[in-house]
Amino acid sequence: MNDVLNFVSVRLDDENSELIILDQSKLPNELIYHHYKTKEEIFKAITGLEVRGAPAIGIAAAYGLYLDIKKHESSNPDDFVRHFQQTKDFLASSRPTAVNLFWALNRMERCLVNNKDKSLMEIINLLKIESGNIRSEDEAVCFSIGEHALSLLKPTMGLLTHCNAGTLATAKYGTALAPIYLGHKRGYNFRVYADETRPLLQGARLTAWELHEAGIDVTLICDNMASIVMKKGLVDAVLVGCDRVAANGDTANKIGTSGVAILAKRYGIPFYVCAPLSTIDIQTACGNDIEIELRKGEEITTTWYQKPMAPSGVKTYNPAFDVTDADLITAIITEKGILYPPYNNGIRKLFEGDK
Amino acid sequence: MNDVLNFVSVRLDDENSELIILDQSKLPNELIYHHYKTKEEIFKAITGLEVRGAPAIGIAAAYGLYLDIKKHESSNPDDFVRHFQQTKDFLASSRPTAVNLFWALNRMERCLVNNKDKSLMEIINLLKIESGNIRSEDEAVCFSIGEHALSLLKPTMGLLTHCNAGTLATAKYGTALAPIYLGHKRGYNFRVYADETRPLLQGARLTAWELHEAGIDVTLICDNMASIVMKKGLVDAVLVGCDRVAANGDTANKIGTSGVAILAKRYGIPFYVCAPLSTIDIQTACGNDIEIELRKGEEITTTWYQKPMAPSGVKTYNPAFDVTDADLITAIITEKGILYPPYNNGIRKLFEGDK
Repeated sequence: MNDVLNFVSVRLDDENSELIILDQSKLPNELIYHHYKTKEEIFKAITGLEVRGAPAIGIAAAYGLYLDIKKHESSNPDDFVRHFQQTKDFLASSRPTAVNLFWALNRMERCLVNNKDKSLMEIINLLKIESGNIRSEDEAVCFSIGEHALSLLKPTMGLLTHCNAGTLATAKYGTALAPIYLGHKRGYNFRVYADETRPLLQGARLTAWELHEAGIDVTLICDNMASIVMKKGLVDAVLVGCDRVAANGDTANKIGTSGVAILAKRYGIPFYVCAPLSTIDIQTACGNDIEIELRKGEEITTTWYQKPMAPSGVKTYNPAFDVTDADLITAIITEKGILYPPYNNGIRKLFEGDK
Repeated sequence: MNDVLNFVSVRLDDENSELIILDQSKLPNELIYHHYKTKEEIFKAITGLEVRGAPAIGIAAAYGLYLDIKKHESSNPDDFVRHFQQTKDFLASSRPTAVNLFWALNRMERCLVNNKDKSLMEIINLLKIESGNIRSEDEAVCFSIGEHALSLLKPTMGLLTHCNAGTLATAKYGTALAPIYLGHKRGYNFRVYADETRPLLQGARLTAWELHEAGIDVTLICDNMASIVMKKGLVDAVLVGCDRVAANGDTANKIGTSGVAILAKRYGIPFYVCAPLSTIDIQTACGNDIEIELRKGEEITTTWYQKPMAPSGVKTYNPAFDVTDADLITAIITEKGILYPPYNNGIRKLFEGDK
């Protein structure tokens, strides 16, 4: 994949004890890699949205915890555990709603607890391996989703995507963009339409950037242009990522996703959700049980450059996500295979198989 | 309506021989009324988008032609006609695709031709009356559309609109916003959701501004939030204007309108097109025959303030309009009454009745 993807959102340089982070907050205008050595810098990278996307944040936090504990100097095991705990709590507080962040840090803690009788040097080495596993397992999940999704696509297809579920948000490949990268390497010559994804423009700033960077034919459109692009027959399939999938298949994803699904249904275009198993929540019965985050109105009323573009004092409604009803979803693509409606059975079986 | 609408997009001050134009290019950040005396200033106001909206442009041009010919000094009738023609051609070249502009200027010319045997002073007075008629007839059309549309609405309804089909674009009231103003005056307490309408943000900058200014409960949303607002049951009807209605009811309007119509259908919400008879084109059989203007990609890739927000060199697709299929339209509301599907018959009868 070196010919396609020559950028990585988060990378460990163990030799120099550095975490190298591609600053997504500066994209697409500047391509800046920060070299961070301290937990404070990595904390700021997360809060400042230099690194975003649930898997990428988890990876950055795990590496950050490893790099900090690697510097531990005392040989007292209690000191070591106290240090580890402090750094873990500190990094966990960088983004209080990011489930993947806690998941990755807890996984590092389990590694410590399971090996507490070993030497500090051995433990540090195991923590390095664990953080590396968190990264490489995410890459494997993305690769597998990409392969399954690609089996549904044909060369030269027009594909539409919303928001950014790409390499920037993950270890590599992304989820919704994984089949596009894997297909591109095989000469599929996809034509990709990227919704700009208001209000924060992840589609314009990130998806268009990473696909363009990889030499893929990408066309940027405003969200409200998806209908005309579909009507003109330019879109053969829609691929989106997701934040949470309920037990019945209802899917929460970036605001606007449900609208794209309704358009796709009208025009007879398949609508595919790319969902790592970690995003499927069998405890949530259906979409109505998913709480939608409401964000500040300034995201709508000011541009990315913080100048007003709506009347001062106007009311706004700014939900970050919406729920796409399961009946609009043609298939849900996981790393373990493709689910088709009705989703209840498929999802239950997938998790029963895990037991 | 003084209690509701205390701004006018275009107003003649005949005593001071001035055209007063509310500068829409500066909204919503500055409320500036320009006082223009020359045809060059009015030309610049049209090209610079200080005045926009087909009816408002036509009114500005007619007034501009009157103000310029009013200054004519020679008593030679041939000189007078030559002067008139030069000014007419000059103003017509300000916006070559604006049908209303030519229509208004041609109407002024007919007034001149029909009265060519009268004294120059009489002709000038008749041209003043004609330009005033163009304005007042537009107001009457908007008022009538508003009354018909209001008959379909009930107090406290939630209404969603796209782009700006308001007072700013017309003599007064607008088309899609007319029933909102008329209902507001009667205490209907509508809740209005305004799509921001990318890429040029007419919804955020103009619709949200004028409704907010009139004290109407307006909530600004990004275009991709229409689906969640409808799903939550907050919208009881959609009202939009139009650029052109084909003989079968297919309707061209600002990009994104067709998507809103598809969402409304999914959620069982009536979708109303407010269409002055002048926008219905019985020579166009259906929507496929309407050519869609493609605009510069910079409108998508740069913000309103001209800073980049997408990767340099990325491909874009930027259609200015789309076509909403007639089967998605619950009713078409004209100044002569409300049309229901199938539209072919209703539209034909409307124009037969005109003969």
